[in-house]
Amino acid sequence: MNPAWTTIALDAMGGDHGPTVVVPAALKALAESPQLRLILVGDQSTLEAEVARQQAALSDRLLIQHASQIVAMDEAPSQALRGKKDSSMRVAIDLVKRGEANACISAGNTGALMATARFVLKTLPGIDRPAIATVLPTIRGHSYVLDLGANVDSGAENLYQFAMMGSVLAQAVDNIPQPTVGLLNVGQEEIKGNEQVKRAAALLATSGLNYVGFVEGDDIYKGTVDVVVCDGFVGNVALKTSEGVSKMISHYMREEFKRNLLTRIAGLIALPVLRALRARIDPRVYNGASLVGLKGIVIKSHGSADIFSFTHAIREAVREVRKNVPELIADELGRELQERRAV
Amino acid sequence: MNPAWTTIALDAMGGDHGPTVVVPAALKALAESPQLRLILVGDQSTLEAEVARQQAALSDRLLIQHASQIVAMDEAPSQALRGKKDSSMRVAIDLVKRGEANACISAGNTGALMATARFVLKTLPGIDRPAIATVLPTIRGHSYVLDLGANVDSGAENLYQFAMMGSVLAQAVDNIPQPTVGLLNVGQEEIKGNEQVKRAAALLATSGLNYVGFVEGDDIYKGTVDVVVCDGFVGNVALKTSEGVSKMISHYMREEFKRNLLTRIAGLIALPVLRALRARIDPRVYNGASLVGLKGIVIKSHGSADIFSFTHAIREAVREVRKNVPELIADELGRELQERRAV
Repeated sequence: MNPAWTTIALDAMGGDHGPTVVVPAALKALAESPQLRLILVGDQSTLEAEVARQQAALSDRLLIQHASQIVAMDEAPSQALRGKKDSSMRVAIDLVKRGEANACISAGNTGALMATARFVLKTLPGIDRPAIATVLPTIRGHSYVLDLGANVDSGAENLYQFAMMGSVLAQAVDNIPQPTVGLLNVGQEEIKGNEQVKRAAALLATSGLNYVGFVEGDDIYKGTVDVVVCDGFVGNVALKTSEGVSKMISHYMREEFKRNLLTRIAGLIALPVLRALRARIDPRVYNGASLVGLKGIVIKSHGSADIFSFTHAIREAVREVRKNVPELIADELGRELQERRAV
Repeated sequence: MNPAWTTIALDAMGGDHGPTVVVPAALKALAESPQLRLILVGDQSTLEAEVARQQAALSDRLLIQHASQIVAMDEAPSQALRGKKDSSMRVAIDLVKRGEANACISAGNTGALMATARFVLKTLPGIDRPAIATVLPTIRGHSYVLDLGANVDSGAENLYQFAMMGSVLAQAVDNIPQPTVGLLNVGQEEIKGNEQVKRAAALLATSGLNYVGFVEGDDIYKGTVDVVVCDGFVGNVALKTSEGVSKMISHYMREEFKRNLLTRIAGLIALPVLRALRARIDPRVYNGASLVGLKGIVIKSHGSADIFSFTHAIREAVREVRKNVPELIADELGRELQERRAV
């Protein structure tokens, strides 16, 4: 690969919409970034047809890598891993493994993506479990949250590793010198967290990270810290719950503005403001979760991502490639381990 | 007590605002419900002064029960339990224990309230741990969610008991004949939940409850089920995260409407609609979480509750008294246990 170029492999068959979203998103991203090269991975003839339908052409910046299989959205990860060695997802990850792509993106089955990426790329030395990290909007800007569902029953050491990886991500991608890190906990005085959280807090307090203490669910959106760390079960529920609240509020807002002629007129007048509001909390802008802790960059796009949304996932991949996030995590981990030994 | 009357003990010193919120809320509730009797528990002279300041008077429907101590919001539950035997919180719970009140309400320290209520009232036979249950708005109406933070590391049997108690609550308070019950889980195909959730699902599937299966975070606000069951750590994070999202959206909305003269005018025109929207998602209307599983009715009001909000907690207590929720839970539990033995 030409080192000045960024090459990204796209699982073009994954997600709810497959090539009809991935191909136009790829064309959009290529138009924006002259140094970008994209490899569409999937069924050759389907992809050629979609490129033609978009009135585009293959080039040295837009290539196709044929893959004969597709991982279904509801397929068991173990089955995908064993039985789908020529899936678009697997071939995209293989391209990263062989150094033919700097990163890959898939909107497919999250479990299969995590299992396959972990099997093919392996975790970084010292990382027990990869995590899923994403950026969420806050009142003050945005924050990283991890893990979002790759791990349940995360132990204290895992939570500590998530904190370290999240901190590196915030540092690298957002140029924050010493990102603040908070551990997600409950506010009930009676219990103040489970054993894992308490032990993770002790680990973090003696680490080199800028650990500020426990945070609660509302702190995620207050932007209290740059990095919120939690077990994958908890993080996944928090993320999905957030989507639910946001959709409920939008639903009620539409209902209220449609109530009668007067409210409809008010809605028309307020439309530019409501659009500006929507743009600020649009989850599509935050599409592209990172599977961190692997020897390679793997980005998960939302399964239902549209073109706009998938383009954001490509941008996220480009940012991580340019900063070389896996190497930074490995470096930081090495430093932390040395410090711990020194203590 | 006259059986036609409902008597509720109010911890008048608890919460961020103490008597300045509890006393006016009590007066408001008394004006609404002619069969209601309220006992203000706390420092006699402070409460007398507050009643006078509200230009009201004590009567056979508004009484004061003196209590010399106050549980601090950040006090350790164990300390409150041992050292504050004459606290307004404890005395209010004692009134329920002695049958002098049908229920009590406190806006004080949740941990202390749970610990004290559990110590004084005891759990219902067959219930290992009480839970905190609340009602949340959904697109389709509202749902019950429990546990919200009384328990971490809930086992399968606990989750099953929460499901049963939530089902009774929905049945009694909302007159739903067979409330649907969902178990909160994660959607990542790789993992599909932790061990406790998987085992709880097996227990629920063979129970007499209307168990419909796993639900995800967004289902809470979609109103997919009448009762959402989860561990207290997860439930607490989900609840606080929801508050955070909702506040962030309000914050952005205010910012967008204040951007310039035109947006301000649009905001004025849209104001009635925005107010109607706010009323529908106003968390104050949902104030009053139930500590279920105890031999008595204990309602937790939000610590920062205002008068409007605290009045809603009183209404919730009245509903539960009229339906005799603890007895219904005990009955249901007896039936379930018999069925299980019969299997």
